[in-house]
Amino acid sequence: MEILEFLAERKFAALKPLVAAMNATDLARIFEEIENERDLPVLFRILPKDLAAETFVEMDGDTKERLLRKLNDGELRAVMEELFLDDTVDLIEEMPASVVKRVLSQSDEKTREYINAILQYPKDSAGSIMTIEFVALRKSMTVEQAFERIRKTAIDKETIYTCYVTDPTNKLLGLVTAKDLLLAQKSATLGEIMNENVIYAYTEDDKEDVARKIADYGFLALPIVDKEMRLVGIVTVDDAMTVLQEENTEDVSKMAAVVPTDKPYLKTSVWHICVHRLPWLLILLISSTFSGLIISANEATLNMPIYGIVLTACMPMLMGTGGNAGSQASAMIIRGIALNEVRFSDLWKVVWKEIRVSVLLGAILAAACFLKTLFIDRLYAVQNGTIVALVISLSMFVTILFAKLIGTALPLLAKKIRLDPAVVASPFITTIVDVLSLTIYCLFAVTILGTL
Amino acid sequence: MEILEFLAERKFAALKPLVAAMNATDLARIFEEIENERDLPVLFRILPKDLAAETFVEMDGDTKERLLRKLNDGELRAVMEELFLDDTVDLIEEMPASVVKRVLSQSDEKTREYINAILQYPKDSAGSIMTIEFVALRKSMTVEQAFERIRKTAIDKETIYTCYVTDPTNKLLGLVTAKDLLLAQKSATLGEIMNENVIYAYTEDDKEDVARKIADYGFLALPIVDKEMRLVGIVTVDDAMTVLQEENTEDVSKMAAVVPTDKPYLKTSVWHICVHRLPWLLILLISSTFSGLIISANEATLNMPIYGIVLTACMPMLMGTGGNAGSQASAMIIRGIALNEVRFSDLWKVVWKEIRVSVLLGAILAAACFLKTLFIDRLYAVQNGTIVALVISLSMFVTILFAKLIGTALPLLAKKIRLDPAVVASPFITTIVDVLSLTIYCLFAVTILGTL
Repeated sequence: MEILEFLAERKFAALKPLVAAMNATDLARIFEEIENERDLPVLFRILPKDLAAETFVEMDGDTKERLLRKLNDGELRAVMEELFLDDTVDLIEEMPASVVKRVLSQSDEKTREYINAILQYPKDSAGSIMTIEFVALRKSMTVEQAFERIRKTAIDKETIYTCYVTDPTNKLLGLVTAKDLLLAQKSATLGEIMNENVIYAYTEDDKEDVARKIADYGFLALPIVDKEMRLVGIVTVDDAMTVLQEENTEDVSKMAAVVPTDKPYLKTSVWHICVHRLPWLLILLISSTFSGLIISANEATLNMPIYGIVLTACMPMLMGTGGNAGSQASAMIIRGIALNEVRFSDLWKVVWKEIRVSVLLGAILAAACFLKTLFIDRLYAVQNGTIVALVISLSMFVTILFAKLIGTALPLLAKKIRLDPAVVASPFITTIVDVLSLTIYCLFAVTILGTL
Repeated sequence: MEILEFLAERKFAALKPLVAAMNATDLARIFEEIENERDLPVLFRILPKDLAAETFVEMDGDTKERLLRKLNDGELRAVMEELFLDDTVDLIEEMPASVVKRVLSQSDEKTREYINAILQYPKDSAGSIMTIEFVALRKSMTVEQAFERIRKTAIDKETIYTCYVTDPTNKLLGLVTAKDLLLAQKSATLGEIMNENVIYAYTEDDKEDVARKIADYGFLALPIVDKEMRLVGIVTVDDAMTVLQEENTEDVSKMAAVVPTDKPYLKTSVWHICVHRLPWLLILLISSTFSGLIISANEATLNMPIYGIVLTACMPMLMGTGGNAGSQASAMIIRGIALNEVRFSDLWKVVWKEIRVSVLLGAILAAACFLKTLFIDRLYAVQNGTIVALVISLSMFVTILFAKLIGTALPLLAKKIRLDPAVVASPFITTIVDVLSLTIYCLFAVTILGTL
């Protein structure tokens, strides 16, 4: 990296124009790669003031903290003044107490009040991610006056492309986009051109629902109102994208039985990775006691000398296929719930669909299983081999049916009782299906083979 | 639904103001719920022309097709004229040949040419999702002239908030945002105020990379250039969000061993669901032959009469825990790759991290496993029970080590050879780990218990 080299060689004159021409996001990546802590403020001081603030926002938590500890009070105050308020709130939530104390001491009274207000909103609510830096206009304004107002205040606003029309009590009346304003007559009033059918969300709404709304409608921002319909903030599309990406990562983690974390993989310590993976592994390990019990209880059947090890040897296939079949269903349902395509009220519709799917899939797989055990595993050469193959295939069919039903119903039930559907995904369902498939299998084996 | 009732009762006078005040996205959902095909064009004709086109874009493929078949040529042409060009391309790609033919016959020459050009770009490339309806301005224009130009052409543009400055050969020189323009002096030229450090992508770039770029930088649009740096189109943030959501759904599908589909769960037919789930289930079923073979080969050890069924009973626990441990690692790595946080060049860094994680996790789980088998499964009461418990715990430790390594390395290797990392996720890795854990287990059992 040219920049890191110049920095190491202290070639500031060459560095200055180079960094000033760069994008904040790219600069943040460079800061994250600086290993010598003392170099962080050195490079930071070279940046133009507004670019410095933008770059700061884009850095990861670690780098922010390392840099903040090196800045003096004056520099810290300068950064705080340039930050948008929602970025300041993010910073407060992310930093350890000692850093927060310094940050707050360098913020003005109004910012501190605002931070306190936002921190009151529940975690994961729309209120906690909104910004109050939006453009509010009045119904009686003309288009020309509106432009005047936007020009005056634009510099401090998160977006000026969607402007909101409110009454003197801050009640949300409508919205106008910058495009509407550009295309309208200069003398028209906002009351005439505004769109009164505003889609909005409440401060307590879940941030994921708000983000999904922005994605579904293709909005650049969504207004957030309190219970009295007063406009208190907006959520912008870039924040919505971040929320959706985080939620997706969280779902993938939960579906893999990992306790979610915000940190990128390479930045997470070995110890933290362990802590996030251990709980589910332990729970699933202990719960495998049940499959052990079932096998022990059916010792007599599974060890019947005339069939040798055959009955045992096909257990992994039954458990594996059952687990896969169940995971398929649960993953699709969990994704459907996340995308708002499937709701709890669809339970019976979904169950009926999965019954038909699993009968069809089960029949094909049972047939394949029958042929496989008979010819690949050479059961045809064993005494009563065809009957054993039938028992295995029958178990396969019933296992798939139950696995699909459990994989379908559990995520929907979890959603109903306000648990995250992703938690009951693959590993959880696999464990249940393990027990189930063994039970079904032993049941068939005992009743059919036991009487031969 | 009030609207569906009014429609059924043919109360058009009441219907008209109701639908005219609605949002296109919400209207599309209503169209999707209309079951009587003949009602589709009836409701469509009530909508104001531009709202009708917007609503059409938001409908799902099925509803679009059903509606198109009911519209006459004049109505079809009216819709086509209102559509943005990228939406027309989406439509062409989605509809069956017979509908495409009609759509093309009702489009003007220029649109047909454009569609052909876009269809030349490879599937999943930036070119295939871009729109050419952007605002291009000249360096020599003043801010006032720029506004004039925007006002004149805004109605047909996908976005006017990011405008691009090009030279007469269409080479991309810089960009100005609507905010820049609003804040600038009216007499300033674009050459003076434009940002020359433009982040762009090429037409052949992967659409997912382009979408992620837009998300990472927080842009409203990204310019797409050809190899000669000529600006040929833009990708807007709403299209980027759609791409990211689709890619996430695709990853979840692949990680659950389901062949991905674009359709929402409830709209996919039973037959199609089966077709998308069967291939992997069959492959994984056949591959379970290996675990069966390992068990059969170790019949003598596993059936040793002095230990009874104990050695068999703990197989599900070993295979299950190994599979879970491997899935955790692979899911995290796959997600890291998707978010561009982990690259193939990080292979050794990642492997070294997972080795430390798995030694730590493996030790804890092996200890838990030792206690569980000894006291919950009551091995302490069996002859040589402590040694058996040790064999099982040792197998657990080694299995976790290998499972984590495979779960880490496979997705990165897949990425390296340009396969989708998500394909080698959970079910695939579970199957490999099943075979591996059985092998390790039988090896230890034979060498340690066989000599007792």
